Amino acid sequence: MADPLRQIKHIGIVGAGNMGTEMTFGFSEQGLAVSLWDISGENVDQALEMAKNEKNLKGEVKGYHDIHEFVKSLKDAERKVFIFSITHGYPADSVLDKIKDDLKEGDIILDGGNENYKNTERRQKELESKGVKWIGMGVSGGYQSARRGPSMSPGGDPEAVNTVLPLLEKFAAKDPKSGKPCVANIGPRGSGHFVKMVHNGIENGMLSTVCEAWSLMHKSLGMELDEIGKVFEKWNSEGELEGTYLVQIASEICTRKKSPQGDQHGEEKGDPHRSHADTLKVVQDDDDSEGTLYWTVMEAARRHISAPTIATGHFFRVASGARAQRLRVAKKLKMPQPQKASDVDKEAFVEDLRKAVYASFLCAFCQGLELIARASKDEDWNIDLATCIQIWRAGCIIQEDHIANMLQPIFESSNERMMNMKLIDEVSADLHKNYEPLKKVVLKGTEWDNYVPSLSASLEYLKYEGGTMLATQFMEAEMDFFGAHAFDKANVKGEDPGKATKGAHHYEWRPA
Amino acid sequence: MADPLRQIKHIGIVGAGNMGTEMTFGFSEQGLAVSLWDISGENVDQALEMAKNEKNLKGEVKGYHDIHEFVKSLKDAERKVFIFSITHGYPADSVLDKIKDDLKEGDIILDGGNENYKNTERRQKELESKGVKWIGMGVSGGYQSARRGPSMSPGGDPEAVNTVLPLLEKFAAKDPKSGKPCVANIGPRGSGHFVKMVHNGIENGMLSTVCEAWSLMHKSLGMELDEIGKVFEKWNSEGELEGTYLVQIASEICTRKKSPQGDQHGEEKGDPHRSHADTLKVVQDDDDSEGTLYWTVMEAARRHISAPTIATGHFFRVASGARAQRLRVAKKLKMPQPQKASDVDKEAFVEDLRKAVYASFLCAFCQGLELIARASKDEDWNIDLATCIQIWRAGCIIQEDHIANMLQPIFESSNERMMNMKLIDEVSADLHKNYEPLKKVVLKGTEWDNYVPSLSASLEYLKYEGGTMLATQFMEAEMDFFGAHAFDKANVKGEDPGKATKGAHHYEWRPA
Repeated sequence: MADPLRQIKHIGIVGAGNMGTEMTFGFSEQGLAVSLWDISGENVDQALEMAKNEKNLKGEVKGYHDIHEFVKSLKDAERKVFIFSITHGYPADSVLDKIKDDLKEGDIILDGGNENYKNTERRQKELESKGVKWIGMGVSGGYQSARRGPSMSPGGDPEAVNTVLPLLEKFAAKDPKSGKPCVANIGPRGSGHFVKMVHNGIENGMLSTVCEAWSLMHKSLGMELDEIGKVFEKWNSEGELEGTYLVQIASEICTRKKSPQGDQHGEEKGDPHRSHADTLKVVQDDDDSEGTLYWTVMEAARRHISAPTIATGHFFRVASGARAQRLRVAKKLKMPQPQKASDVDKEAFVEDLRKAVYASFLCAFCQGLELIARASKDEDWNIDLATCIQIWRAGCIIQEDHIANMLQPIFESSNERMMNMKLIDEVSADLHKNYEPLKKVVLKGTEWDNYVPSLSASLEYLKYEGGTMLATQFMEAEMDFFGAHAFDKANVKGEDPGKATKGAHHYEWRPA
Repeated sequence: MADPLRQIKHIGIVGAGNMGTEMTFGFSEQGLAVSLWDISGENVDQALEMAKNEKNLKGEVKGYHDIHEFVKSLKDAERKVFIFSITHGYPADSVLDKIKDDLKEGDIILDGGNENYKNTERRQKELESKGVKWIGMGVSGGYQSARRGPSMSPGGDPEAVNTVLPLLEKFAAKDPKSGKPCVANIGPRGSGHFVKMVHNGIENGMLSTVCEAWSLMHKSLGMELDEIGKVFEKWNSEGELEGTYLVQIASEICTRKKSPQGDQHGEEKGDPHRSHADTLKVVQDDDDSEGTLYWTVMEAARRHISAPTIATGHFFRVASGARAQRLRVAKKLKMPQPQKASDVDKEAFVEDLRKAVYASFLCAFCQGLELIARASKDEDWNIDLATCIQIWRAGCIIQEDHIANMLQPIFESSNERMMNMKLIDEVSADLHKNYEPLKKVVLKGTEWDNYVPSLSASLEYLKYEGGTMLATQFMEAEMDFFGAHAFDKANVKGEDPGKATKGAHHYEWRPA
């Protein structure tokens, strides 16, 4: 068998944006020749200009304005291998359309965009008769990782994925402990893009939790950014939040100062003592360029997975994006602004907050993993959750060492297909242990009129996921009243617990 | 012009379940001949058996086991008119398939099922070439209303809708104040089913809020069901919760006693003093037979409408349905159960609770109406929100007189298309006024470990919808760090407020 690493010596990258350009340099550093094309010739030229300042490029980087020349440049390879790093949906379809006729059996396209797994599966089917393999590959880690090694989740035809895997393994981020690469064959069809979608959903829940923690410390405890930065740094260095990417960068953000000259990397010159944490609004998602967040909410809803931490993160972000409208609403709603706390033990509160943040992170992971498990069963993808944890160990946005260390050995040694993460002893023990701190933080945040949407959603989630007699028993009574939904009774054999289906009893509350 | 009422003298009803059977009797009482068919002959026979006990039937009711004979029975009419009252999705498609060849130009099918508007639009297109009109018609009010007059939202070909409208107006529930029927031409294509879907989403948010209120009074204040029933009755009789269907039936549920003999309407014999509020779980949604709830969450997510009250109601209900699994989780999570309150002014708390429930209802309405407004604009449906309020005035589950009285005249007199309900003075004034009581209730509910998922989601919603500087400013900084999402700055002209699109500044936090 030929060494696949030797088979692939030249790849074509479609898209010279942030991610595509950094991947171009990354693959060149691995010794591969890289052809680069973008619908904007300007982007290609800019990338080639940037290449001049790169010192470690090995493989030749060639840019193309003409897409057919770009494809032709790969014609000597045994198979043409492309990586798409462009916007999902129409742009991907339109580029595929342009190159379709130049493709032949055995060619492989890795779609590294944040594509909806259903589009991925559609394209896979469309290319089937040609023998061309379309691989839906999530790429996580942002543009820094795109260069230094991202976390990747390829899914599709198993043979095609295995053909490119050695190449991807070389390029991928490595788990610093085991040295293992953060890429693996996720499964067939759209499974790779689905896993990346959920990664982004978990990310959104975590982002919301982190920003709520920041707001509590900054606006209510009155802590300066430097001090908050030190707290985040400490959180990231030990305990349950050890090695959490979003906490680590939070610390950098809080402590970074502007230099008087600017840093020549996009930073503006300005007040040297002002931190850059003066950003204003979250907008990317609101112009529909990022679909993964709301797709996750949609998938959780339709697959009946309770995912309030993730959904809340999305709704909070949407509200944030519509700033102009919000300012008009604010004048009318006259809501109190976050208050300064009085009479609070700051140190104790910050420690409770650390635990609360962890509990909320773990809730987001439970929700995301349960969604993957559910979809994997529904779609017959056979996704290994241990593999998901492995690829999230480095290079990606939701890296959280403590959670990965806890879950990976459990998933690796388990013989059963886990569907509900709260049934894992270690998970439930941690959630139990951190319920009280989470509750305290939500109480204080609520009292101070500060923003705690994801923290409070996580708290409620824990209560109702672990409740034996929920308030919904009255909801069922109401639904039986008007809709004859029928109910089961407590402590009756065969009914308690019964199946998730229509109940055994209907009471004719009001005859028709 | 012929009187349309005289044109339609005979209709065919597909589906002899609860709703179909009651509609059969309802239309017969209006003087129409009704043909009835169901895939289960047993259901048809049962309906005919029930018809014998009905005293006010006027039009002849005939049941059919053979679908072609059923269709043939309508052949003398100028146009065949059917009402489908069956499960959405495959069942509706399969019945349509069976009768398709027997349909001719001008025939009208009213789909009264809880169908997804996209399926409705697909069928409308499929039937276009035949000249058959498929109308997606939401029917709300449960089986009691199906008989006494439901609330209906037909949408589709305007001429076809107008043809059946006089008939529907006669059958529909009437607003007791104005006498106006609770049915109207909603708009083209799938708009009618979309409005019904959102109705059910709002309903789910309200159901969650009511059951949380019940749980707070019952489990924490320790109130007996009779006492709670009186509270609900009072709430329903005056003020902001006046004429709220779900509060009214809550009162009936709490005060109803079993009779020693059973009531011959499905009630079991039993302890005469035990209320029927001993239902256990909410399951209908969890076997996928009801799609409207999670479709609403999906639509809100993809159209970027923050709808946390509605989404939370769905997630709470899903968790409730999975009781067997929840009991296993409960053993591990060991969450505290709702606690009895000590040291609380019961009367004052119940009054705060009333206001909190109203605030949460109003949040659910804002979210639902904003979703309709958004979809109407996106899809060019031109839905009149005043019409939505009008059809929700009676016969439906989300009837809430105070909200309807407040909103209908505003929508009727407004010239602009309203997209954000919080910009309405009366709405924001009410939300402002009830923020503090809502906050108090959430604080107490959280303290008592009781369930307040929708109440707390509404509280957070109010804060972030009316906040000027949200915690998300830090989320944006993090997204700019790893994703170069770019941000705008506060108090900079053209940026604050700017557009919901990529921001003006990127800081190179960590070079790639």
